[in-house]
Amino acid sequence: MALVSSLAALSLLQSEGGVPVKALVFKPKTAKSQDPVPIIVIAEATTQTPSSVIADIAEVKDPRLAKDDLTQLFFATTAVQFGLGHLNPDNASKCKLVLDINIENASDDKVYELKDNDSKLTISAKTLKDFLCSLSNNILVANFFALAEKKPAQKPAVPKKDKSVARLDDAKLIGVTVDKNLDFPGWYQQILTKGEMMDYYDVSGCYILRPASYAIWERIQEYFDKKIKRLGVQNAYFPMFVSSKVLEKEKDHIEGFAPEVAWVTRAGSSELEEPIAIRPTSETVMYPYYAKWIRSHRDLPLKLNQWNSVVRWEFKHPQPFLRTREFLWQEGHTAHLTFEEANKEVLQILDYYVGIYEELLAVPVVKGKKTENEKFAGGLFTTTCEGYIPTTGRGIQGATSHCLGQNFSKMFNISVENPDGADKPKLFAWQNSWGLSTRVIGVMVMVHSDNKGLVIPPRVSQYQVIVIPVGITSKTTKEEEQKILATCNKIEGKLRQNDLRVTSDYRTNYSPGWKFSNAELKGIPLRIEVGPRDLQKNTVVAVRRDDFTKTTISLDTFEKEISDLLETMQAEMLARARAKFDSHRIIIDKWEDFVPALNRKNVLLSPWCGDADCEDDIKDSSAKKDDDDDEEEDEKAPSMGAKSLCIPFEQPELKAGQKCVKCDRPAIHYCMFGRSY
Amino acid sequence: MALVSSLAALSLLQSEGGVPVKALVFKPKTAKSQDPVPIIVIAEATTQTPSSVIADIAEVKDPRLAKDDLTQLFFATTAVQFGLGHLNPDNASKCKLVLDINIENASDDKVYELKDNDSKLTISAKTLKDFLCSLSNNILVANFFALAEKKPAQKPAVPKKDKSVARLDDAKLIGVTVDKNLDFPGWYQQILTKGEMMDYYDVSGCYILRPASYAIWERIQEYFDKKIKRLGVQNAYFPMFVSSKVLEKEKDHIEGFAPEVAWVTRAGSSELEEPIAIRPTSETVMYPYYAKWIRSHRDLPLKLNQWNSVVRWEFKHPQPFLRTREFLWQEGHTAHLTFEEANKEVLQILDYYVGIYEELLAVPVVKGKKTENEKFAGGLFTTTCEGYIPTTGRGIQGATSHCLGQNFSKMFNISVENPDGADKPKLFAWQNSWGLSTRVIGVMVMVHSDNKGLVIPPRVSQYQVIVIPVGITSKTTKEEEQKILATCNKIEGKLRQNDLRVTSDYRTNYSPGWKFSNAELKGIPLRIEVGPRDLQKNTVVAVRRDDFTKTTISLDTFEKEISDLLETMQAEMLARARAKFDSHRIIIDKWEDFVPALNRKNVLLSPWCGDADCEDDIKDSSAKKDDDDDEEEDEKAPSMGAKSLCIPFEQPELKAGQKCVKCDRPAIHYCMFGRSY
Repeated sequence: MALVSSLAALSLLQSEGGVPVKALVFKPKTAKSQDPVPIIVIAEATTQTPSSVIADIAEVKDPRLAKDDLTQLFFATTAVQFGLGHLNPDNASKCKLVLDINIENASDDKVYELKDNDSKLTISAKTLKDFLCSLSNNILVANFFALAEKKPAQKPAVPKKDKSVARLDDAKLIGVTVDKNLDFPGWYQQILTKGEMMDYYDVSGCYILRPASYAIWERIQEYFDKKIKRLGVQNAYFPMFVSSKVLEKEKDHIEGFAPEVAWVTRAGSSELEEPIAIRPTSETVMYPYYAKWIRSHRDLPLKLNQWNSVVRWEFKHPQPFLRTREFLWQEGHTAHLTFEEANKEVLQILDYYVGIYEELLAVPVVKGKKTENEKFAGGLFTTTCEGYIPTTGRGIQGATSHCLGQNFSKMFNISVENPDGADKPKLFAWQNSWGLSTRVIGVMVMVHSDNKGLVIPPRVSQYQVIVIPVGITSKTTKEEEQKILATCNKIEGKLRQNDLRVTSDYRTNYSPGWKFSNAELKGIPLRIEVGPRDLQKNTVVAVRRDDFTKTTISLDTFEKEISDLLETMQAEMLARARAKFDSHRIIIDKWEDFVPALNRKNVLLSPWCGDADCEDDIKDSSAKKDDDDDEEEDEKAPSMGAKSLCIPFEQPELKAGQKCVKCDRPAIHYCMFGRSY
Repeated sequence: MALVSSLAALSLLQSEGGVPVKALVFKPKTAKSQDPVPIIVIAEATTQTPSSVIADIAEVKDPRLAKDDLTQLFFATTAVQFGLGHLNPDNASKCKLVLDINIENASDDKVYELKDNDSKLTISAKTLKDFLCSLSNNILVANFFALAEKKPAQKPAVPKKDKSVARLDDAKLIGVTVDKNLDFPGWYQQILTKGEMMDYYDVSGCYILRPASYAIWERIQEYFDKKIKRLGVQNAYFPMFVSSKVLEKEKDHIEGFAPEVAWVTRAGSSELEEPIAIRPTSETVMYPYYAKWIRSHRDLPLKLNQWNSVVRWEFKHPQPFLRTREFLWQEGHTAHLTFEEANKEVLQILDYYVGIYEELLAVPVVKGKKTENEKFAGGLFTTTCEGYIPTTGRGIQGATSHCLGQNFSKMFNISVENPDGADKPKLFAWQNSWGLSTRVIGVMVMVHSDNKGLVIPPRVSQYQVIVIPVGITSKTTKEEEQKILATCNKIEGKLRQNDLRVTSDYRTNYSPGWKFSNAELKGIPLRIEVGPRDLQKNTVVAVRRDDFTKTTISLDTFEKEISDLLETMQAEMLARARAKFDSHRIIIDKWEDFVPALNRKNVLLSPWCGDADCEDDIKDSSAKKDDDDDEEEDEKAPSMGAKSLCIPFEQPELKAGQKCVKCDRPAIHYCMFGRSY
């Protein structure tokens, strides 16, 4: 049997039962003058491998399952009988190989089952991958699962261009195999899944937050919850369902959300009398009750917050953390007697959001106000903190704190008698709403992480330190080994007593090198190596995840040194990210410099007239026109035009007579523009 | 104008604009031989007042809006012109008065607008209520809002019988007006809304958790989250949506939930290709990913938990906290290599649940195992802690911890290679799932609260202590007043430093007596009164909410004394509740004693054969047959039969040859039976 002979050298006999693997041959549409190049797809049996995806990833047209003529020519077998065993380095070099990402991501000891016509074999994923590597060093990896999500204008995760270049040469199959700078979306997806932050889910646009990312959310909750409670905000929980009558009460508001509202129309086997919406946000859910509870000016301020999930059924390309159909957030809703009080809170909350980005996530942001075009529908004004993704040069909205004015209070009759006297007109409450979502995690990942995997700031990382014993060989005495492990345990214990979050890896079936890579993939900020030579000197070695600097630390002072290292790392991560943002936020006064500066991955501060039509014009005029047929590496940039990100609170000085960057009107302030998420 | 003359003495002129009030006259169906008794409904103009509800609450048949003949006879006006001003104590004594609960619950300074034919007036809620009290001391209060919820076999919150008796004689309108022992459902609803724990919502079966109840949930989260994290459980978040394909994978399981699943079929204006379910629980949401993530026995145990909300669209009578269509809970899902490990965890988690009930909520529970009939659909066995509501004599399921066995792991292929050798068969994981919901808050309220309002155990109460200045009169000097307020502030500050949760009430427009009632309504465990006479003796007075005992406390030692008092109160609340449960959990060996004991509000420990049909037979045979036409005060009890609550872990000794309490088979253990929620 061909399979056995091909694989024999690799000692593949393992236990019965495993995940079946299929190998399929596709033939692309080929000009008659040319020889066809077969495409071999190696995938888990349950993975669907639509030909459109194969076409994209292999850069071919209209691939079809090959017939016997082709398989006979290349592999001397029929299409039905073809299997992995028919491949060898010689014939493989004449083909394109496409590998299911499930197999690439499989841990070494996952068991696969290969079927030949007459028998079957089970082998470990490692064996399978070693075999494939022996066939070719240019295997294309396809994430059929992510790609299978229904969306308009479907694009492959791995772009058409530069795919083989984007693939990291020194990457092992277990690590990140895509270069951040060459294929940003593919890289983002890989580090999130391989770093075990999240997983794809079988309902499109929904994702699983695994413990590594949920722990970050818990840190953020802890930080923010404490701060808002000190402001007198109380947590509560309102239902996720809204009747259409209530949802549609505020017209501008619902217009902004209507296209994305998910509707429940059936329960069990009964049709509901009226469809019920799932909240996209809770203004209209809560405010009828604010009207009921607020009876006197002494009931003000009313300050409630909830930690919940909301649903916005977007039809655009979903992206983990950044654009998801269900997401976790907090939404605060407050009502005040005066504008001054409301306004003060809006800015206070915005500062807390800045704190989450800068103090916790080490992501610098710019504070400002949204333009009328971009503000919250139905509100008075919106403040925002805006981040920057250096790799793509795009801006990203961080979190928003809205002053709703009296618009909702008039709509819902949230009013009190006038404290100045019963003869004075009643007063409508001044309201705010403010929200921050799990999007922050996506921003953090995009800013800091690298080609080795995640890089997570110490203050939010699920684990801050990992302890790994090293240098244990066959020559190590039992006594030495015991001493190493005892030291590891002691370090773990002491650090935990100091409230650090510590993990360790004492497994004996993995090498220290493998463990290092694994910890780097997951972004654990500090790795402590405990080995025999160090112990003789009463030291251990600490390696930072962000810049890989090594520090030798005395066991007498390690608690303080490790705490200090973590704080230094936190500060330096922010400083580095800030330097990048600062050097890519540039002042552009003339329109002819605008698009070239955008194309150099900058966000721009430009004098602006404040006119909404001019804002639209800037967006249109800065969009790259599709004058050639080239597809872009990303669905949005750089063909996308520049949006106004915010009018920064911190303003460059406006020169006398300064005109708008785009039109002839006088500028009234600088506005920050950029391509954005 | 009649209205002015009737109300003139009460000085009612207030600001313009208020909530309009309507007064309607209804005429019930009356035998020709009898005089009709008009029903006057006083309600907010927007409150719908269906005649079916009026019929129930006023104990009359078929009330219709009265015509001129009746209104002329009683009020000397036409039906259209009738208004509140036409009422006086004389004619009111010949009518039944029904008051909208929204008015009864309104704070004193809420502004109402009364319209006569020719003019309108605005008066405060207090004035309105004083006026109504002057007309009659037997006003029926109707919660039209709660009653308007669509459900089969709708029953009024206030029962048909004993309604006037249930009304508390000494209750002011601001306080609880229904007696716990005489109208338990009406009382429950009133203390929850008046105590500001929750509010009704305009989607039936959904309720708002206000800060007072959400804070209790936060205490529970804190307690449980810390404990499970020590077990190695990690928090995560899975999507709320499930595809029907995945939901329906485990047949027994889905059969249990299918009739209650809410389906999203539309997003914006697009029909979805396939309806998507909202999770009723997350077994089938999570387990496909467990299968993916668990590749080796080294990936076990996998222990995840999430704090989320789930939706079960029940069509039965909804009840705040106890049966709601959306509820908050935690659901833990773990996978283990061995049954022993899974089994150990099931019991460990059950003990934590018992801890939440007994240590935090001061509610005693009985641990045990569910019968086959009552266990979790698709699981191996279910453990439970069962509570008891003394007022109704009914049992209530507290929280359940399930061992799922290998049923789901086989269905979802959650398996690992055998660690004993690759030649041994692969192993399916042993799984558990366990959940505790906000139902716990409802149980706590039912067990402890009284006719003055909520009684909340100190360990979970949003505020543990309220500081109230007393004895400030017109004779009090400015200096004395300052000293009292300074002492209040000092006490607040010191207690906060000791991590107690403290609030205060320094308002000058309410009397101390009003503040006491208000704090009692909300269930704040300890009230500290600071007055001039006490201060001369360097003391303050502490009053416990649960038994109203007063303690004089030295200002030199108040921090410790108050902490001690709170702990004593916590312990005594549990002890009292335990004494009640213990004295109403009785051993019944003979069937003839079974139903009478149930009717005496007991839960029963009876020897039982373990047969599922016998269990059904016990339920049927203990249900009260509808031999008279009397309607029950509660939709379920006592016509309801006795369910098996659990097979308690702590068993009475089974006598040799003991037969089943119901059938002729030998008993295999004692089972706890009871009417239940």
